[in-house]
Amino acid sequence: MKWQDSSHQTCSVARATSIFGDKWTLLVLRLLFVRVYKFSDIQQTLGITKHRLTDRLNRLIEEGVVFKHLYDEKYKRYDYRLTEKGTDLYAVMIVIGQWGDKWLSDENGPPVEYVHKDCGHNAQPALTCSCCGEKLTPHNLALSMGPGLKKKIDDGDISEQDKKLYANAFALKK
Amino acid sequence: MKWQDSSHQTCSVARATSIFGDKWTLLVLRLLFVRVYKFSDIQQTLGITKHRLTDRLNRLIEEGVVFKHLYDEKYKRYDYRLTEKGTDLYAVMIVIGQWGDKWLSDENGPPVEYVHKDCGHNAQPALTCSCCGEKLTPHNLALSMGPGLKKKIDDGDISEQDKKLYANAFALKK
Repeated sequence: MKWQDSSHQTCSVARATSIFGDKWTLLVLRLLFVRVYKFSDIQQTLGITKHRLTDRLNRLIEEGVVFKHLYDEKYKRYDYRLTEKGTDLYAVMIVIGQWGDKWLSDENGPPVEYVHKDCGHNAQPALTCSCCGEKLTPHNLALSMGPGLKKKIDDGDISEQDKKLYANAFALKK
Repeated sequence: MKWQDSSHQTCSVARATSIFGDKWTLLVLRLLFVRVYKFSDIQQTLGITKHRLTDRLNRLIEEGVVFKHLYDEKYKRYDYRLTEKGTDLYAVMIVIGQWGDKWLSDENGPPVEYVHKDCGHNAQPALTCSCCGEKLTPHNLALSMGPGLKKKIDDGDISEQDKKLYANAFALKK
C-alpha cells in the first residue's frame, strides 16, 4: 500500500492518519493550538526548513484543516489559523498530551496542567460515555458496525483486508 | 531540530509524537487494538514490507508500548501485544477515529459505532472535565503551568523556543 492510499480506506483512523500521521504535521498543529500563527515563528520554534514547513502547511490547507489568514491588510501579510475542522482536533492534541504527561514525563511531573474555565478547577480531561457519563476504558468500550461499513458490505465494495480487520474488531457476519 | 530530538522536549505532545507520530506506527497500533497480533497478519493487512514493519515494531518494543508475546510454547512462536503503556493509547485511537468519522466519512456515514458495554448503549465518547463532568471544548479549556515546567524554569533549564511556546500557551512570567 502506498501511504496516500490510506485516505481512501474504510477505517476512519487510517483516513485521519493520512492527513496528520506525520511527525511534523502534529507539531505544527500543536503550535497553531497555542496561537503560534506566523510562518517564521512556527519555523523558528520547530527548527525546520522553510521547504518542509511550506509542504506541511500546504497539505493542511488542501485538507481544509488550516487556512491562510490575512492579518495585515496594508502589507498583505498572512499567517496560518485552524479552520473548524482543524480546531476540532483539540481532543486529539489533549489526549496525546495526556498520554505523554503520564508515560513520558520525568520525575518532576508534567509540564502543563489543564484548567476547565467553566468550573474553574484543575481537571484531568477524561473520555466518558455520552449516554451515562461513565469513564470509558479499553475494556468497557466495544465497536459495532456503522452505516458506512454496512453500505460497503451490501454493495460488495469491501476489500479482503478490511473484512479481516473488521472481523477482528467485532464479529462481522460474512 | 532532528526528529528524534523531540523525545527530549518539554512538551508532552512533542515527546509522544516522537514515538507514534509516524503514519505506519499509528496504523500498526490500530491493528493491535483490534486484536490483529501476528506479524504476518499485520504485514498483510497494511501491505508494507517486512523490513518496515520490523522497524516500527522494534521501536514500539524499545519504548515499552508493545511486547513480544509467546503464543506457541512448542514452536516458540511470538506475536505482538500492547503493554499497559500501549493499551493506554486507546483514548488517542478513539479520538482520532472520531475525528475521521466526523470529517472524513463519505455520505454513507462512519464505518463503525461505539458501544459502552457497561450501560449497553451506542455512545459517542466525549472528552469531559474530571471535576464537574461538563463537556470540554477548545474554548473552555486552558493550560496552566505544571510542576515539570516550573522545575525547568527554576533550574534555568528551559530553551528560548520553549519559553516562547509556553508564553503563548499561557501567560508565562519571565
